Amino acid sequence: MSIKLQDISTRAPEHFDKKETREKTARILEELDGLQNLLFAESKHSLLIIFQGMDASGKDGAVKNVMGTLNPLGVKVRPFKAPTEEELAHDFLWRIHAHAPARGMIQVFNRSHYEDILITRVHKWCDDETAYKRMDAINNFERLLTDHNKTHILKFYLHISREEQSKRFEERRTDTAKHWKFNSNDYKEAELWDVYRQMYEDCFQHCNNPSWIVVPSDQNWYKEYTIASVLLDTLKGLNMKYPDLKK
Amino acid sequence: MSIKLQDISTRAPEHFDKKETREKTARILEELDGLQNLLFAESKHSLLIIFQGMDASGKDGAVKNVMGTLNPLGVKVRPFKAPTEEELAHDFLWRIHAHAPARGMIQVFNRSHYEDILITRVHKWCDDETAYKRMDAINNFERLLTDHNKTHILKFYLHISREEQSKRFEERRTDTAKHWKFNSNDYKEAELWDVYRQMYEDCFQHCNNPSWIVVPSDQNWYKEYTIASVLLDTLKGLNMKYPDLKK
Repeated sequence: MSIKLQDISTRAPEHFDKKETREKTARILEELDGLQNLLFAESKHSLLIIFQGMDASGKDGAVKNVMGTLNPLGVKVRPFKAPTEEELAHDFLWRIHAHAPARGMIQVFNRSHYEDILITRVHKWCDDETAYKRMDAINNFERLLTDHNKTHILKFYLHISREEQSKRFEERRTDTAKHWKFNSNDYKEAELWDVYRQMYEDCFQHCNNPSWIVVPSDQNWYKEYTIASVLLDTLKGLNMKYPDLKK
Repeated sequence: MSIKLQDISTRAPEHFDKKETREKTARILEELDGLQNLLFAESKHSLLIIFQGMDASGKDGAVKNVMGTLNPLGVKVRPFKAPTEEELAHDFLWRIHAHAPARGMIQVFNRSHYEDILITRVHKWCDDETAYKRMDAINNFERLLTDHNKTHILKFYLHISREEQSKRFEERRTDTAKHWKFNSNDYKEAELWDVYRQMYEDCFQHCNNPSWIVVPSDQNWYKEYTIASVLLDTLKGLNMKYPDLKK
């Protein structure tokens, strides 16, 4: 699939009303709570939710506001940062596979194996040949989870504008409650915006089974609504039912 | 590669002398000790050694007598038995990948992911469609290790005759030092010899990159010599060298 991020709006469609949408989201989250319980009880399927996006695109917020109301017994969140020495001594999927969800579970990745073909390519730590080999490996890996453990993979790209990113960086710099998220290095990364966008588009094209979901994310209320809606549709589509009483 | 196990001898070629061969093996093991140290020091490559074979084909003995003289700092052995409940809640390669070798290491698998297309097929716990899907997944997985972490995979099939197996079962039944290995269930499995052989041959044909090495194993001294020789050739072929002094 060829995606041109510049052609996709980072904002909610015009007819969406903030207050109304927030109410809808709240209702969806209630419904999700029941479905997650069913997923856990049936323990036949599992969900892997991947959040990718530029710095300050709202990945942490998505985790907090969409997953936060679910029963933590059945939800695990794993952030992937720069690999440790031990992780680097293995293939790049080794640390990822270790956190693949067990049946019945929802596993959230805040960043993921996709960093191995994003930040690494942007900084030229990895050449194109290696990158395309990694993409093949990623496709095989995702198929392994899907085919051999009924894992449903949802890949969300949180899509923000450069202007929105700048605004959020500024908030982090000036708001004491957000200082901890401020990283002066983010400004440097932001200068590489176009290269990142290009690498994301290449990744969407080559690793698109299952498909990437581009979420307009300048407004958190719309981002949360979109993610919650996709989760709802996915879980409903599994046709789950509570197991019979074991006799 | 089409392998017919019935056409392959389970014994040493005639010109091999037991005493002489044991002496050769001892010399190889000494050389291996140095090469393993080099592998560890260089930490560029890794070795994954897989032992498969019928019950009593001498997998434990191979581990003990070929790996036993190496520095345990750089050698890990992982036996794979019936999967636990947690392992079963994941794809079949999840527990395997966790034990993939770090660079610099030798990892030995006593049984492996191949059981998921062997014992499972023999007992019809897994249909052919699933089995062939698993073989594809295994091929992708082994390529991942080879391409993305310079892991050299050696797959040994320890090839014994039915007569030798019966003899060894009898020893386990009568020798107090071998009682702990006796399992009356092994007799039942032995009745399925032909089906196992057929499933092994199918596995050799579909999962043959890297190739399987069929080791005539009725005589332990020849089995050990063969395995040690392959290890020696493999490690020598890596053209390793000690890293320069860091300044």
